[in-house]
Amino acid sequence: MDKYQSIKVAAYEANMLLPKYNLVVFTFGNVSVVDRKEGVFAIKPSGVPYEKLSPESMVIVDYEGNTVAGNLRPSSDTLTHALLYKSWEKIGSIVHTHSTYATAWAQALQDIPIFGTTHADHLVTDIPCAPPMNDEMIKGNYEHETGFQIINELKARKLAYEDVEMILVGNHAPFTWGKTADKAVYNSTVLESIAQMAYLTKQINPNAGRLKDALIVKHYERKHGGNSYYGQG
Amino acid sequence: MDKYQSIKVAAYEANMLLPKYNLVVFTFGNVSVVDRKEGVFAIKPSGVPYEKLSPESMVIVDYEGNTVAGNLRPSSDTLTHALLYKSWEKIGSIVHTHSTYATAWAQALQDIPIFGTTHADHLVTDIPCAPPMNDEMIKGNYEHETGFQIINELKARKLAYEDVEMILVGNHAPFTWGKTADKAVYNSTVLESIAQMAYLTKQINPNAGRLKDALIVKHYERKHGGNSYYGQG
Amino acid sequence: MDKYQSIKVAAYEANMLLPKYNLVVFTFGNVSVVDRKEGVFAIKPSGVPYEKLSPESMVIVDYEGNTVAGNLRPSSDTLTHALLYKSWEKIGSIVHTHSTYATAWAQALQDIPIFGTTHADHLVTDIPCAPPMNDEMIKGNYEHETGFQIINELKARKLAYEDVEMILVGNHAPFTWGKTADKAVYNSTVLESIAQMAYLTKQINPNAGRLKDALIVKHYERKHGGNSYYGQG
Amino acid sequence: MDKYQSIKVAAYEANMLLPKYNLVVFTFGNVSVVDRKEGVFAIKPSGVPYEKLSPESMVIVDYEGNTVAGNLRPSSDTLTHALLYKSWEKIGSIVHTHSTYATAWAQALQDIPIFGTTHADHLVTDIPCAPPMNDEMIKGNYEHETGFQIINELKARKLAYEDVEMILVGNHAPFTWGKTADKAVYNSTVLESIAQMAYLTKQINPNAGRLKDALIVKHYERKHGGNSYYGQG
Repeated sequence: MDKYQSIKVAAYEANMLLPKYNLVVFTFGNVSVVDRKEGVFAIKPSGVPYEKLSPESMVIVDYEGNTVAGNLRPSSDTLTHALLYKSWEKIGSIVHTHSTYATAWAQALQDIPIFGTTHADHLVTDIPCAPPMNDEMIKGNYEHETGFQIINELKARKLAYEDVEMILVGNHAPFTWGKTADKAVYNSTVLESIAQMAYLTKQINPNAGRLKDALIVKHYERKHGGNSYYGQG
Repeated sequence: MDKYQSIKVAAYEANMLLPKYNLVVFTFGNVSVVDRKEGVFAIKPSGVPYEKLSPESMVIVDYEGNTVAGNLRPSSDTLTHALLYKSWEKIGSIVHTHSTYATAWAQALQDIPIFGTTHADHLVTDIPCAPPMNDEMIKGNYEHETGFQIINELKARKLAYEDVEMILVGNHAPFTWGKTADKAVYNSTVLESIAQMAYLTKQINPNAGRLKDALIVKHYERKHGGNSYYGQG
Repeated sequence: MDKYQSIKVAAYEANMLLPKYNLVVFTFGNVSVVDRKEGVFAIKPSGVPYEKLSPESMVIVDYEGNTVAGNLRPSSDTLTHALLYKSWEKIGSIVHTHSTYATAWAQALQDIPIFGTTHADHLVTDIPCAPPMNDEMIKGNYEHETGFQIINELKARKLAYEDVEMILVGNHAPFTWGKTADKAVYNSTVLESIAQMAYLTKQINPNAGRLKDALIVKHYERKHGGNSYYGQG
Repeated sequence: MDKYQSIKVAAYEANMLLPKYNLVVFTFGNVSVVDRKEGVFAIKPSGVPYEKLSPESMVIVDYEGNTVAGNLRPSSDTLTHALLYKSWEKIGSIVHTHSTYATAWAQALQDIPIFGTTHADHLVTDIPCAPPMNDEMIKGNYEHETGFQIINELKARKLAYEDVEMILVGNHAPFTWGKTADKAVYNSTVLESIAQMAYLTKQINPNAGRLKDALIVKHYERKHGGNSYYGQG
């Protein structure tokens, strides 16, 4: 019995949701799922088409990025995942895609403004876009530095990763995370939807304003915290 | 025999049309259907994915928003539905979605201009966008106040809910209604289509003008009133 | 044996292509097919959803718009079809839709500029947008006048209906036609595709220029006339 | 046993991917696959709908554009394919489509700027848009000249066809190529995705800047050359 079977199945199933939700073409995305007890995570192998994936093809990697089990090379973004798991103890899964609208905002080097309640249902701030790294970082341990860039951007903005579960990496594409694989994939899907709505909003009204604070707080608290009343509790 | 069976089935079937017509992702929408004799309506339970819904999972609620039957918590938007049913005696069903283009117009805080006959086939005015509520209303009984905001916006514009069966709630998203569940869902679908066409029209020609009155009247009367000649009568 | 069976089947099958090619929602479109010997055409009944259509539900109408056979009321656009069949002897089928991008150009009251060879493969001019009718015409025999508006717009531009098989009716939507039902539906689909590409072209480059004459002629003649070398001859 | 069977099957299967990946409507595209030993390539017949294709319907053509085997007329773009195979010894397959976003950039006569890492994963320069040919070339051997235009544009920019496997032909549409049919079709799909993202990026931020050199090099080298670490090696 494979002691990693559970995260391999979870990572496999979550990866298969990316094409289902139209978040990827070909192999442009990856999901990982962590096992906190074992200190390892399961991640998509690099460059393998989704239709050829299976739970067995997932690669088991530790927080330093070393492959612990599996016959294939892990995703080229593995070191970014590793650093986030190492640094953020409460996350259970990470998703990286090049979904169309979120990637366009990342390429435009702009935060996604909080224009409406769909956005506020999920987070109370603009969706941050981290600037591109400096050349040293890019030429160095690039994927590891990408993780630092994400962590540092949240810190610099005084945002907690438990509250803001999504970010754009400037000129690159989005990363999302969550306590479970379902939540992390949900976040990628919601981000793409919010990114599209924000795009259209700005095209309709270039002077569209930020959602007012009272609405931000109200909608966020409907879904989060002790007084939430959304869902089945 | 459940005396609410008929509206539970109708509400279930209408809710299932939302993903079919691409009006929702995940749980971002809800339909209710009223039973005027019993003075209650059936509504989607809060936060339950569409693929897990059944007629049995619908919640029965009265016009004050009290749950009368059902094991689940009703939609977080229930009080908005309740007030509309209480205030507008002739409607039979209400739909709320965050459909992409309609929500973008709501976020832009702009009415959808009547640019063409597709629009005039359904209503003779711009599609109204109600402004966001003041902070008191938001912090108070928010969903109930959302209902008031909708009712008051139509009143302020001297529009009858029997004629204008759709509205944008500013910074939030659309609500539509109708005499039947099919008509209410139809209205949400048509609204999204009109919203997309109006978006494109404005991008092609920022100075695009309002449809002329003669065409508005002609197209509306083809489909509505005693001299209509659209459909099978 | 029904002597109209052949055009009823052809009209039914062509109508069913409209939802297949994403040219309509609900009942927003109609196709007719003419029988030149009998001097009648088969057309979609008014307001009947596509999934409920059958060859038997098609309505047989003469060139004056009188129903000759069938139990249902014909499309509310029937008089437009009738006048076009009466005036243009060589067409065999007419299609009317409210397809998204073509309708947006119609609402913007702009011709679709000939920006590329995809367009020139099908016609050598901008796709004309007829202006809205004057109020007298609208209040009068509206659908009949719509037919005149189409015919007169082509005349005014010195375009032959055999060459230009598509037009936008300003503030309304497109009409296309062709020698066969397949060709008429093909034209509606191609028009929507050209309309989308032209929209995007103009957004990318507001100063994008018209295709040069040599390319227009070359591409059109590849597909049309005695020296064409596209297709299987 | 047909000695061309292998390239006929490969060309057939690759052509069938074009509608699957939403790169074509009707017959607006074609794929060819070369047999370097025999000095011929298999290409789609002209104007035949994808659903009627079979390996047997592929046409075998030599580098001068002469039909060597097959009962149908080859694609009207055959002479472009022929010249590229003759000139570029290392390519194995060519794809031509009128995919929506890539064609819009071609119609706008603009290169697709390198805005992000999705682009840099595939090539290190803007995607070139060749200007329209002069009238002599158009009126002459047009499809043959189109091949020259492609070859000359790469030369003028000092780009190698082995590195840049895609180009826009101004006012026309894209061509892509690759060592295999799968790679050539992959390139057409990636190009369409990059074209859409670049479109959105420019709409969000008209001043969006080019990706910095360090990121271009990093991402390209992750996937290409001796130090690549993407995929399974």
